[in-house]
Amino acid sequence: MNEKIAMQDLYGETWAQCYGCGRLNEHGLQIKSYIEGDEVVCHFRPKPYHTAIPGYVYGGLVASLIDCHGTGAAAAAGYAAEGRAPGTEPALRYVTASLKVDFLRPTPLGPVLELRARTREVRRRKVILDITLTAEGELCARGEIICVRIPDDFGRVKE
Amino acid sequence: MNEKIAMQDLYGETWAQCYGCGRLNEHGLQIKSYIEGDEVVCHFRPKPYHTAIPGYVYGGLVASLIDCHGTGAAAAAGYAAEGRAPGTEPALRYVTASLKVDFLRPTPLGPVLELRARTREVRRRKVILDITLTAEGELCARGEIICVRIPDDFGRVKE
Repeated sequence: MNEKIAMQDLYGETWAQCYGCGRLNEHGLQIKSYIEGDEVVCHFRPKPYHTAIPGYVYGGLVASLIDCHGTGAAAAAGYAAEGRAPGTEPALRYVTASLKVDFLRPTPLGPVLELRARTREVRRRKVILDITLTAEGELCARGEIICVRIPDDFGRVKE
Repeated sequence: MNEKIAMQDLYGETWAQCYGCGRLNEHGLQIKSYIEGDEVVCHFRPKPYHTAIPGYVYGGLVASLIDCHGTGAAAAAGYAAEGRAPGTEPALRYVTASLKVDFLRPTPLGPVLELRARTREVRRRKVILDITLTAEGELCARGEIICVRIPDDFGRVKE
């Protein structure tokens, strides 16, 4: 596959409205997740107003990034498990069933944040991933996300 | 105490910059948490662009609301445990150490969301709370948050 295409660029129009990662949501964060070997990687620079206290990133943004990066990475894992290239039909999309974030140290506001997702487990309808969030090489947060696969025709029915 | 004052209205200037709940962050969500008996309650109406897919609320917003409401409710619990009125000195402020959100059903976008926090455990430096998020009486998400107390002089040093 072409590793320069973000998972979110493969989403249909319904999914592309997401505040966190939808390319069509002009108010949103528009995060992008790229497959890199057996990890999925996202880089994101928070806005100056994404503050917790001055100088540090708001925890809800950290959770939001882990959430959307997680569902994108779940799709990548789902395609890989089926031996298919991302974007091939039927489209695989996931929603979050459970999200856990451990805030290990305050995340500095300013540098680009890097998220890396690793698949822990893939089942037919469920993917579990471990996600790290680092800033300038320092681990700031660790996430665990359980994603559930949406029925194949879901997006099409809604669109 | 006056139950009409939100926990967040008692925060010093440093804390009032928070994207989730800071009254001074004009880009932020500005959520408000009010003590009601032994619960702490927040009402919030998402913006039309806080979408997951059209018609449903973005999961990252759900996590953000639970996060900020949780730290506000932790402060309420901390004051109660010390037999003090919220806002009295020394100020009690908490940060999130760990956040877990279970998404039980899609949260409809449109209605006001209600969050209710209940204290599970209060220790000297740590508060654990259970939080529900409902829309029109339907339970959509359940959160568990572990909050850690910030040293008394932290806000003052930063300000």
